[in-house]
Amino acid sequence: MNHDRIDTAIPVLGDAKIPSPIQRERQGEIPSCFISDSESVLIDVDLNRLKSQLEQNQTPSAFERAGPRQKIYFDPSKLKCAIVTCGGLCPGLNDIIRAIVLELYHGYGVHNIFGIRHGLQGFIPAYGHDIMELNPEAVVSIHEMGGTVLGSSRGPQPVEDIVDCIERMNIRLLFMIGGDGTLMAATRIGNTIDERNLKIGVIGIPKTIDNDIYLVSRSFGFDTAVDQATQAIISAHNEAKGYPNGISLIKLMGRYSGFIAATATLAQQDVNFTLIPEVDFDLEGPGGFLEALSERMDRRKHAVIVVAEGAGQKFFKAPAREKEVDISGNIKLDDIGLFLKDVITAYFAANHLEVSIKLIDPSYMIRSLPANANDQVFCSFLGRDAVHAGMAGKTKMIIGHWNGSFVHVPMTASAGKRNRVDPYGKLWLSVLEATGQGALKNPTYE
Amino acid sequence: MNHDRIDTAIPVLGDAKIPSPIQRERQGEIPSCFISDSESVLIDVDLNRLKSQLEQNQTPSAFERAGPRQKIYFDPSKLKCAIVTCGGLCPGLNDIIRAIVLELYHGYGVHNIFGIRHGLQGFIPAYGHDIMELNPEAVVSIHEMGGTVLGSSRGPQPVEDIVDCIERMNIRLLFMIGGDGTLMAATRIGNTIDERNLKIGVIGIPKTIDNDIYLVSRSFGFDTAVDQATQAIISAHNEAKGYPNGISLIKLMGRYSGFIAATATLAQQDVNFTLIPEVDFDLEGPGGFLEALSERMDRRKHAVIVVAEGAGQKFFKAPAREKEVDISGNIKLDDIGLFLKDVITAYFAANHLEVSIKLIDPSYMIRSLPANANDQVFCSFLGRDAVHAGMAGKTKMIIGHWNGSFVHVPMTASAGKRNRVDPYGKLWLSVLEATGQGALKNPTYE
Amino acid sequence: MNHDRIDTAIPVLGDAKIPSPIQRERQGEIPSCFISDSESVLIDVDLNRLKSQLEQNQTPSAFERAGPRQKIYFDPSKLKCAIVTCGGLCPGLNDIIRAIVLELYHGYGVHNIFGIRHGLQGFIPAYGHDIMELNPEAVVSIHEMGGTVLGSSRGPQPVEDIVDCIERMNIRLLFMIGGDGTLMAATRIGNTIDERNLKIGVIGIPKTIDNDIYLVSRSFGFDTAVDQATQAIISAHNEAKGYPNGISLIKLMGRYSGFIAATATLAQQDVNFTLIPEVDFDLEGPGGFLEALSERMDRRKHAVIVVAEGAGQKFFKAPAREKEVDISGNIKLDDIGLFLKDVITAYFAANHLEVSIKLIDPSYMIRSLPANANDQVFCSFLGRDAVHAGMAGKTKMIIGHWNGSFVHVPMTASAGKRNRVDPYGKLWLSVLEATGQGALKNPTYE
Amino acid sequence: MNHDRIDTAIPVLGDAKIPSPIQRERQGEIPSCFISDSESVLIDVDLNRLKSQLEQNQTPSAFERAGPRQKIYFDPSKLKCAIVTCGGLCPGLNDIIRAIVLELYHGYGVHNIFGIRHGLQGFIPAYGHDIMELNPEAVVSIHEMGGTVLGSSRGPQPVEDIVDCIERMNIRLLFMIGGDGTLMAATRIGNTIDERNLKIGVIGIPKTIDNDIYLVSRSFGFDTAVDQATQAIISAHNEAKGYPNGISLIKLMGRYSGFIAATATLAQQDVNFTLIPEVDFDLEGPGGFLEALSERMDRRKHAVIVVAEGAGQKFFKAPAREKEVDISGNIKLDDIGLFLKDVITAYFAANHLEVSIKLIDPSYMIRSLPANANDQVFCSFLGRDAVHAGMAGKTKMIIGHWNGSFVHVPMTASAGKRNRVDPYGKLWLSVLEATGQGALKNPTYE
Repeated sequence: MNHDRIDTAIPVLGDAKIPSPIQRERQGEIPSCFISDSESVLIDVDLNRLKSQLEQNQTPSAFERAGPRQKIYFDPSKLKCAIVTCGGLCPGLNDIIRAIVLELYHGYGVHNIFGIRHGLQGFIPAYGHDIMELNPEAVVSIHEMGGTVLGSSRGPQPVEDIVDCIERMNIRLLFMIGGDGTLMAATRIGNTIDERNLKIGVIGIPKTIDNDIYLVSRSFGFDTAVDQATQAIISAHNEAKGYPNGISLIKLMGRYSGFIAATATLAQQDVNFTLIPEVDFDLEGPGGFLEALSERMDRRKHAVIVVAEGAGQKFFKAPAREKEVDISGNIKLDDIGLFLKDVITAYFAANHLEVSIKLIDPSYMIRSLPANANDQVFCSFLGRDAVHAGMAGKTKMIIGHWNGSFVHVPMTASAGKRNRVDPYGKLWLSVLEATGQGALKNPTYE
Repeated sequence: MNHDRIDTAIPVLGDAKIPSPIQRERQGEIPSCFISDSESVLIDVDLNRLKSQLEQNQTPSAFERAGPRQKIYFDPSKLKCAIVTCGGLCPGLNDIIRAIVLELYHGYGVHNIFGIRHGLQGFIPAYGHDIMELNPEAVVSIHEMGGTVLGSSRGPQPVEDIVDCIERMNIRLLFMIGGDGTLMAATRIGNTIDERNLKIGVIGIPKTIDNDIYLVSRSFGFDTAVDQATQAIISAHNEAKGYPNGISLIKLMGRYSGFIAATATLAQQDVNFTLIPEVDFDLEGPGGFLEALSERMDRRKHAVIVVAEGAGQKFFKAPAREKEVDISGNIKLDDIGLFLKDVITAYFAANHLEVSIKLIDPSYMIRSLPANANDQVFCSFLGRDAVHAGMAGKTKMIIGHWNGSFVHVPMTASAGKRNRVDPYGKLWLSVLEATGQGALKNPTYE
Repeated sequence: MNHDRIDTAIPVLGDAKIPSPIQRERQGEIPSCFISDSESVLIDVDLNRLKSQLEQNQTPSAFERAGPRQKIYFDPSKLKCAIVTCGGLCPGLNDIIRAIVLELYHGYGVHNIFGIRHGLQGFIPAYGHDIMELNPEAVVSIHEMGGTVLGSSRGPQPVEDIVDCIERMNIRLLFMIGGDGTLMAATRIGNTIDERNLKIGVIGIPKTIDNDIYLVSRSFGFDTAVDQATQAIISAHNEAKGYPNGISLIKLMGRYSGFIAATATLAQQDVNFTLIPEVDFDLEGPGGFLEALSERMDRRKHAVIVVAEGAGQKFFKAPAREKEVDISGNIKLDDIGLFLKDVITAYFAANHLEVSIKLIDPSYMIRSLPANANDQVFCSFLGRDAVHAGMAGKTKMIIGHWNGSFVHVPMTASAGKRNRVDPYGKLWLSVLEATGQGALKNPTYE
Repeated sequence: MNHDRIDTAIPVLGDAKIPSPIQRERQGEIPSCFISDSESVLIDVDLNRLKSQLEQNQTPSAFERAGPRQKIYFDPSKLKCAIVTCGGLCPGLNDIIRAIVLELYHGYGVHNIFGIRHGLQGFIPAYGHDIMELNPEAVVSIHEMGGTVLGSSRGPQPVEDIVDCIERMNIRLLFMIGGDGTLMAATRIGNTIDERNLKIGVIGIPKTIDNDIYLVSRSFGFDTAVDQATQAIISAHNEAKGYPNGISLIKLMGRYSGFIAATATLAQQDVNFTLIPEVDFDLEGPGGFLEALSERMDRRKHAVIVVAEGAGQKFFKAPAREKEVDISGNIKLDDIGLFLKDVITAYFAANHLEVSIKLIDPSYMIRSLPANANDQVFCSFLGRDAVHAGMAGKTKMIIGHWNGSFVHVPMTASAGKRNRVDPYGKLWLSVLEATGQGALKNPTYE
């Protein structure tokens, strides 16, 4: 990974001059609890590459380390903050809302905290969503529930109207929790704020059930999603073993990346084939998926297949569509789960093997349940660090996690790109070993 | 419920003359642990109806109480037994297999126990399934897994061939775990055995994830299925609340009966509409489901709907099909979940309300996971009582649960009929109160 | 069980003359949803005993069936109700509170519902506990939490003061959720109400984590407690198998009865010895527990022991105390878990076998977590039926569960007696078979 | 943290010359899947410190990155391997055993794999433990169970005898899974092997439920332990809220470090005081724990306290013992849970506040259950990387996790030191914020 050119400088609203009110008196004013802006986390930890960069007088890229700053930018007693959650649900949203509110309130003494309802819609008067007042009492138990107490919504809203609303409400610090689209909207909101010469901080917390936000090595809720996905695999495995020639197909979330599919495969190692968007595979002919599946059935009489929803999309392009119709006559082109079910059924029918095939789709169940302990801890850190960054006057940045540390990532560096499963990396190679599935490529096609 | 005419007499293979070897010595030969055939469990426990029956010289129907008998029919040292699991998976299958094996082995000293693989197919040589030897070592940990270690299969097999196999293997006692179809096959097997003048016992253990076996008030695995279904409801509720005008639709198993849907509704009371096969409902017009849903959306802005897979099948019959096309143009007629999703989408589109509708289908996940503690205890009793009955020479009966007791039910009394949710009974009325859903009937249709 | 003499007549406050407002209009006034007082549930379901009773002109005992009545006693618009939870926590308390509130509010239109805080203390002004107003909004999510939102407390309070408070608050219908002590207090409260010629209903819902309330075949929370207890057994089993000569000892709740210990043993069949208060056992000599444990260790090298906290109390009486000191020198006489750990340690030390012994005590963890699905459904019925009974003018009764039905049990018939595990009954005999533990009695002692 | 002087060089048995048989053919010989020894993971990721090191011509410390090597040292067809698990149970032991066996067998073609029973005892003939043959069939389902299928034991065994056994069995590659004591034994075993001029690899996988192994940022099983600990906190919170002046005290594992206590506090934020070995606290006087608890009780009427078993050990030293007797008269000095319970009870008794105090000790239940999904994935990597390292001829090293990567850590660098919770670090400061507990120090003592 070539990170040499990543600009990791974090925009600031101005000088942070107010001493942080974080109460450490009872521990005796401990300056060492504060993090300096010069503390950094190298992006690339390889010693040799680092040396060669320094020999060439290049400065290696490094993220600012997240955490409380000794000086803050906003006067807590006058500050109004807002929190908004956007896009798809993700385990841990309520934990983050809770952590932000508690840190603002108890850590900094900020008592005006607004919850924007239903994502970006909440900024637009036409929708008529009310504002939710947030304080410790309001959030004390919300982490026990999945979803988001603020509500969410999908899709963009006019940036000018959003900034109008922010101005009207006198919000000076906005926390936006959302996916790639939200972070791009956040960047535009930040830019519009700049254009209007306002001093309003915008801090993002990246949300993606698929774990595919660029420069963020782990996203909240992912661990819970994998946890839930393992239940579907256990169930699928029992169904496959339970019947003569049983085949179970589990469709998991993962539109552009197969992290959930790959990680769940390692967490519940009953899977024989894992199909993800990042790794091409063929269906037919020698080396193709169907032949490999057929061999597996001969050998073991049952099979478990995990497919990420974004895998195999090439079969739905026009030429594939024609081919696909040849095989199964299936017209449900947009769902790889249904498509594979039909293709497999047709294949074994043509080969006179009676199989018992089942499609299991846990769908929203892996993203709407409460966060597990691990994600709760993680979200607690994310929320607090977002507050620390925002109070310090930083803006247009997101809280990331890199090389085991929480860091500040400029929105511009991350937005619009995606993490993807590296087909030659540790995760995917482990999946190949756990499944024993091979390349699933027909060499005659190449 | 009129049970007056139920014939509860249990067929026997002959006189049970051998003292039961159940080891009670260490407790000092306690005869009172044995159950006499005359111990009974009244089917109808209403005192008034009972008095009036007795006044009319009718004998009230009562089931034989299950449990160990003082005298047994088979010589354990010579006996060969077999166990077979048929039909759909159900939590607890392995617990029952384990309980039968342990009771036969340790309780009675029967050491020849065969597991028939893959349901009735396992009796038919053409399928080539091997036989599994069962003993305590082989079953010690199987209760930790879902599914069935014996495998299962669907569909009938020739009864004569099955009995041929039983004869060939010298099996004298057969335990069949399966649903209504299996119990009818068991009856036919028992009849064929009688015709051949063989002394072979056939004991059934009724299996139905839907809890709809007649004269069996509770079937194993049902509690686990409801447990799992609640997770889908929690998830659906969070999705519905999470979005402006969020509607979540959960499809649950229940082909002919709505016990899972109704019970899960009471277990996780976030549901606003529960639709089951036993209770008719209309979609359109005043009082219909869509209007009621629309009112709910006006009032609360979100809704959770549980639908049993067998509900609303009238919409798929020819006249309904035409009507249904009028509404949504949907051609997926055989899936009430997809159908309702389309109908609801079309309805609100026509009414210019943008809704966020999601369909969640946990499908096999509610039946393939291991049994919970409650079902494990229940299965342990079922398996042991099946052995007690079989060893006592009883046949063509199933182990049932009635008025809180385990009982012997003649196959002829139960097979071919179903339990259904009583639309005027306690369960459904509680669902009506928990959901507040009303009748969902358009009076102009009647 | 001889139930001939049980007086099952339920006291009433007066004639119920007001038509029930339970809304069935949308279903079209269905009288059949109402239960008549003459509907009954026989206590003893044995046909032969029943016939002989009737031949002797004895009326068999039968409980009134619970459920909504067509006529009610109280005018909902004027009625003030109160709910109180007393004694130890139990999974499902919040579910019952919720069900009572929702049924009163939505089913009957009662809008004045008070929550009494911290058990009977809440009636006594000196404690200064506030009153909690209960309505649907206040209880909507409480079933997701363990414990009780009302709080609880232990110990008696002066009955006259309690009734003074009830009078002062104009409460006409009181729901008391508690154990045997609470039900006896409820009886005294009811008697004092009678003495004062007041028309105030007192309905009890029996609570006991130990499942030992007389004439109540199942108490709420018990299933959840067993669920939790199985986790301790799994853990204990792994510890025992993990070490050379590993012995794990799990102490479970059960002061006077061993239902949790016995049922958990059947739910997680890794237990080799189960010790309960109802079944005497000896420690030393031939046939005693230590010898049996020693044999088990010789044979299998590990052992898992479940002990109910009330088991083996004879070892703490004076003569036992002397003997016990001989063996282990242990002075922790009041804790059977610690006592057995010491006794076993000393025994094997004396016999030169190095064992790895571990004591696991899940203690409150089995009673303080939220109810599982099964208990949630059960509690939902209990709460609704309590409301139906109370609104119908019944008093000094509890909601019980008998022969699979919900019933009305007079407080006088149940209070002050306990269910106990029958040493010759199905549950205990199944435990003996599951553990293979034998009688654990030294015959020379008898 | 000053890591400048860490020697990160990994000992090797000799040149690795055999091409790795890891099967990538079906993917087309992909050299990029192999990791070179020169790939490294910097220990300190701070850019400024790094620059200053390089300016001073110091080479920054960096670990070798773990993963498959292109050349291996052992001939798989002739190699005999062994696996041993030592010390306390930990979730994930079976996952690691499974991963090692599967990688050796399928990845490298090693078919002679022995399981040493019951830890180091298994090497000593006098104990008579048998050897377990390990292959894919034997390990296929073991990850579903907690504990270790190999068994474990505590305490040292003579190193010479261990190496004698290894020689006798012709084992050339030994995988040792255990805690700090085991890793020190492993070092001694490695040294003895060197002294005997043998070519036998010894690879360690660090195990510690307490997460306190030095230079290992995360240890397996810890996440599962925290998961389980949250259940105890939920239960404790419900008990505390349930009673007037309820105080719940949860004792958690953590002999020398408070990672479990601190992390569980963040995972289930119902805790008001967290006490760990690393952070001193006083009981009495202004600022002390008892006063702070008293203030909390005044304000909120209930409190939840988490205490790591190693916290507050100063109270058990001689002077503390005298003081402690003054307060409570308690003689159970070795258990901080019981001690605090008595101290708190005595304190409030003296202050005439009737409290309801409960001690909850989940003890082994947090370490003996199966690993959760996250730990299963983690263990899968650990096991595979251990095999890769061992096959490459590396020895006297452990598999660690650092800055988000799996790395090779020399045993000498890690053994005998511990990770501890940094009282000024992010974790503890977050605990202070989550609990609001303050310093709990009496300044007059200092």
